[in-house]
Amino acid sequence: MERPRHQGMAKNTCMRWRLPLVCLLWEVAMIVLFGVFVRFGPEADAHWEEEKHQMNLTSDIENDFYFRYPSFQDVHVMIFVGFGFLMTFLKRYGFGAVGFNFLLAAFGIQWALLMQGWFHSFQNGKILIGVENLINADFCVGSVCVAFGAILGKTSPIQLLVMTLFQVTLFAVNEYILLNLLHVKDAGGSMTIHTFGAYFGLTVTRVLYRPNLEQSKDKQGSVYHSDLFAMIGTLYLWMYWPSFNSAISEHGDAQHRAAINTYCSLAACVLTTMAFSSMLQKKGKLDMVSREPRALEQCFVSLQHTPGPLSKRDGAREEPSREQGNKAPLPWLCTTFLHQGRSLPEAILTISILCRFIKAFDFTGSYKTRTPSVQGGFQAAGIFVSLLMAFAGGALVGAILKLPIWGDAADENC
Amino acid sequence: MERPRHQGMAKNTCMRWRLPLVCLLWEVAMIVLFGVFVRFGPEADAHWEEEKHQMNLTSDIENDFYFRYPSFQDVHVMIFVGFGFLMTFLKRYGFGAVGFNFLLAAFGIQWALLMQGWFHSFQNGKILIGVENLINADFCVGSVCVAFGAILGKTSPIQLLVMTLFQVTLFAVNEYILLNLLHVKDAGGSMTIHTFGAYFGLTVTRVLYRPNLEQSKDKQGSVYHSDLFAMIGTLYLWMYWPSFNSAISEHGDAQHRAAINTYCSLAACVLTTMAFSSMLQKKGKLDMVSREPRALEQCFVSLQHTPGPLSKRDGAREEPSREQGNKAPLPWLCTTFLHQGRSLPEAILTISILCRFIKAFDFTGSYKTRTPSVQGGFQAAGIFVSLLMAFAGGALVGAILKLPIWGDAADENC
Amino acid sequence: MERPRHQGMAKNTCMRWRLPLVCLLWEVAMIVLFGVFVRFGPEADAHWEEEKHQMNLTSDIENDFYFRYPSFQDVHVMIFVGFGFLMTFLKRYGFGAVGFNFLLAAFGIQWALLMQGWFHSFQNGKILIGVENLINADFCVGSVCVAFGAILGKTSPIQLLVMTLFQVTLFAVNEYILLNLLHVKDAGGSMTIHTFGAYFGLTVTRVLYRPNLEQSKDKQGSVYHSDLFAMIGTLYLWMYWPSFNSAISEHGDAQHRAAINTYCSLAACVLTTMAFSSMLQKKGKLDMVSREPRALEQCFVSLQHTPGPLSKRDGAREEPSREQGNKAPLPWLCTTFLHQGRSLPEAILTISILCRFIKAFDFTGSYKTRTPSVQGGFQAAGIFVSLLMAFAGGALVGAILKLPIWGDAADENC
Repeated sequence: MERPRHQGMAKNTCMRWRLPLVCLLWEVAMIVLFGVFVRFGPEADAHWEEEKHQMNLTSDIENDFYFRYPSFQDVHVMIFVGFGFLMTFLKRYGFGAVGFNFLLAAFGIQWALLMQGWFHSFQNGKILIGVENLINADFCVGSVCVAFGAILGKTSPIQLLVMTLFQVTLFAVNEYILLNLLHVKDAGGSMTIHTFGAYFGLTVTRVLYRPNLEQSKDKQGSVYHSDLFAMIGTLYLWMYWPSFNSAISEHGDAQHRAAINTYCSLAACVLTTMAFSSMLQKKGKLDMVSREPRALEQCFVSLQHTPGPLSKRDGAREEPSREQGNKAPLPWLCTTFLHQGRSLPEAILTISILCRFIKAFDFTGSYKTRTPSVQGGFQAAGIFVSLLMAFAGGALVGAILKLPIWGDAADENC
Repeated sequence: MERPRHQGMAKNTCMRWRLPLVCLLWEVAMIVLFGVFVRFGPEADAHWEEEKHQMNLTSDIENDFYFRYPSFQDVHVMIFVGFGFLMTFLKRYGFGAVGFNFLLAAFGIQWALLMQGWFHSFQNGKILIGVENLINADFCVGSVCVAFGAILGKTSPIQLLVMTLFQVTLFAVNEYILLNLLHVKDAGGSMTIHTFGAYFGLTVTRVLYRPNLEQSKDKQGSVYHSDLFAMIGTLYLWMYWPSFNSAISEHGDAQHRAAINTYCSLAACVLTTMAFSSMLQKKGKLDMVSREPRALEQCFVSLQHTPGPLSKRDGAREEPSREQGNKAPLPWLCTTFLHQGRSLPEAILTISILCRFIKAFDFTGSYKTRTPSVQGGFQAAGIFVSLLMAFAGGALVGAILKLPIWGDAADENC
Repeated sequence: MERPRHQGMAKNTCMRWRLPLVCLLWEVAMIVLFGVFVRFGPEADAHWEEEKHQMNLTSDIENDFYFRYPSFQDVHVMIFVGFGFLMTFLKRYGFGAVGFNFLLAAFGIQWALLMQGWFHSFQNGKILIGVENLINADFCVGSVCVAFGAILGKTSPIQLLVMTLFQVTLFAVNEYILLNLLHVKDAGGSMTIHTFGAYFGLTVTRVLYRPNLEQSKDKQGSVYHSDLFAMIGTLYLWMYWPSFNSAISEHGDAQHRAAINTYCSLAACVLTTMAFSSMLQKKGKLDMVSREPRALEQCFVSLQHTPGPLSKRDGAREEPSREQGNKAPLPWLCTTFLHQGRSLPEAILTISILCRFIKAFDFTGSYKTRTPSVQGGFQAAGIFVSLLMAFAGGALVGAILKLPIWGDAADENC
């Protein structure tokens, strides 16, 4: 908050009008597009009574709303409080982290409703939305929040909005390729949300890397209370993960199972992460927590990205690589690796894990003939498409963000 | 916390016994009244099995509890964490804000259960309560919390309790007039909760205005961490707003629709509010957030009071007037306008907005003959009744609070 | 965080490997036990469709998941955010409290799933789990969190893990004796969770008492922001208590009733607690909150342990004894009494309260013949068994924790 202001001012004299203009123009565009395209889905529409008769439902409680709404609110809290407060660990950046996360997520969910709607809920020229669309929009924005963690503190709000616009678009395309063309199984969004989001953010950060920022390491520290605020974010991401993974599972046993699996898997992860975290600590003594609060926090941070519907036995697969992030020589790595360090091993592991899972799926319709090993190939293809989209898309968006029109922050302020 | 104590002590020597006495006497009164009047409603009563047969329900899941409980808990969090932490932005007043909010809300919900019960759930001399009554009691207390925002830091806990007692009473009367006599449509409580609460609080503050407080402006500042705490409140109010608006909608599509509408509308509001907030900032440069954390917070604060079930297109109607609050010359305006500055334009807008909505309502029974324009007139009447109740009631309650028996805080402590 | 490090280091040289080793070994044991014993229950299994036909259910919404999941997530938040942040009031111990609470709770729920499963959900050599098991595991861990409050800041993480292992085991045994052998009614877990947890923690602390800690009282203070963090915990425990009490009630009216009862009872408790808190304050003046933030917090802390499904009329039974904790001469009492001071009177009250309640229960099957007074005897027996288990178990576990192998914290660090 006490940053030197002169250069920032000199560089961005017309900033006063740029952010409001971008926000208002985009919001007007959203409102027009919503007016033209978006309508209530059959379960939210006033004709629900007829729908109920047609679908032979006996009670209002069988509206999809009651199957999904509690999970939706939990996911909503994860995006805004979970990711928002997770980023508050930098002592100078608490307010900005929560506020910018709020701004980009609020914009992102609108654009995601439209993009995902065009791909998945488009009927007779209209997008029909229901509670499941809201959850999917939140998921999509979750991927942007992961990427936001990588460029934390290095960008202006306009750059964030531009990145959100492009990332949501690429997310929807990637999701369409994986789910509708390759017919990949991606419960919990390991590929579409986590792998894509992490490498996208990493690539953007690499492109935006400015060597002058080497010396600003002092601004990357944390203070005691900023760590406690970050714990709020960490805990909410951890606690509501069962809702995240079960939110759009099929009604009944599938939702039930996803929640139980995630609950057990997450509990196991806490112990293994603590173990590795304490082991890799230089002075990994007894009260590493009180002496090195960051250590514990890091392990929690990495923990949140545990992919979802893993069986109990996969809980122990946390790997030490993430810890290295701390000693990365380049500033652009610092905030990045903290979040992304575990994505590559994750990608590799995902193949084997998902292949094991396939046995549990019943392929029906035209995919009935897929053997587990054929499906395994499609899963691997899904990962490589996600990585490709992340790297190519990230490089492109990074280049766009480097254009001098977005009013990026002066070096001293980063 | 380090306030000078002497005068406060001199003034309130018998305070030690006054607050406990008021709390205990009122609680005893509540317990007696609950014992005499309150009984479980048919869906919470042990005779639910018979009820189920009578209503031809096939499963326990059709109990109203399962339709409303998740939304109820979200509303509960909004009242106690949302409003409580929202008020922590004053650096000296974080603990008091959360604690007093807790005290007044806990008292208010008991009295609201009784008052609203007498008006709306009274059968054979008993108030029959269910989960819907709990939600309505929380709504009513929400209106008190809005008013509490206006007098923050200027009153003693006893004064707050007295204000709560009167405001809840007036709220229930106003609600009865609007909903049962005028048959006004007030989903989301724009009139009964927000307009009434805001102007009631504003009027009470005006009456309690003490010129000596002009010089205590230094106590109205915020610090970095107090702003982050306020963000917790802000985010919870924002995130759970869909639950707030859909909590007591009709089962099925109506609840579904209210949640979707609010979700989209709120997302739109974030962008427009950010735009106006940044535009009105004197040095509205790029990183207004890091340089002027208050700016962002204000826009969030004003955001929360966005009335609910508006269509997407109304998202852009945030108006700049609220920002002026900051420069208001009188101390009593400072904390007030922050919350209430947008209520008058809101009131005016509400008429036009609601009239548009009416087309979507099917009037049944004896109100079937009401044309949209007749209903529009009733809506306008509803607003004026609410304003009248707020001004007259606020003036009366303000005068009562000025009586020297409540042990108000000494000037230096405000 | 700025504790002197030398002695801690000298004492615990091999700590670097001990905590990781314990965590990993135990997690491996958990994974093996889960692999051998744990399977999905019928409502979470892929054979749910057949189950549905057998049980004559018409819709997926009648899966137990939809009856219990929202309450489960609320209880989950209570354990991790509620208890975690509740303990942050000590100025030096915020991060440790939240982090250690996270560690022990994550370990505890795995062990509780197994222990409670063996006693209550064991069929054909397998433990069948569903959402109700998750809730029960969280309840069991709640008891450990209560005990953790008593030894806050005096133990190493390994000691906490060992204590958790034993306490969960004893909890399951005690629960089995009370519910399955004595057929005691213990809605809300007054005996199994609160009484047992509190006295267990108290006994462990007494055994671990070290006279040298007398002079470390300065570390037991709180600061302004640590109190606000503690308020987060307090509020979440308070707000979600209706979910805690209704989470495993029977479907339909029973769940509905438990939530309403808890809501009303808790609201009443706020007023009476404030009254006694303010009365017992030496300078219990008007703004005791701003002058003595601890006072308010204490009353909230004690408030949380209000047992659940009491009728409105029991709201006023908060007793002043808890307040004395503050002036207790021995350090081991300081953190303990804060949480446990009210347990004995609670235990005594519980008998009379529960006896009153029994009239509302219909005894069926082989317990039909129990008269209220016979049942009253069994209730009293339940309390004494709980106390016995707490004292004997606590003494044993305390003695185990005193063994020099766990690397306990050096005196100066406590």
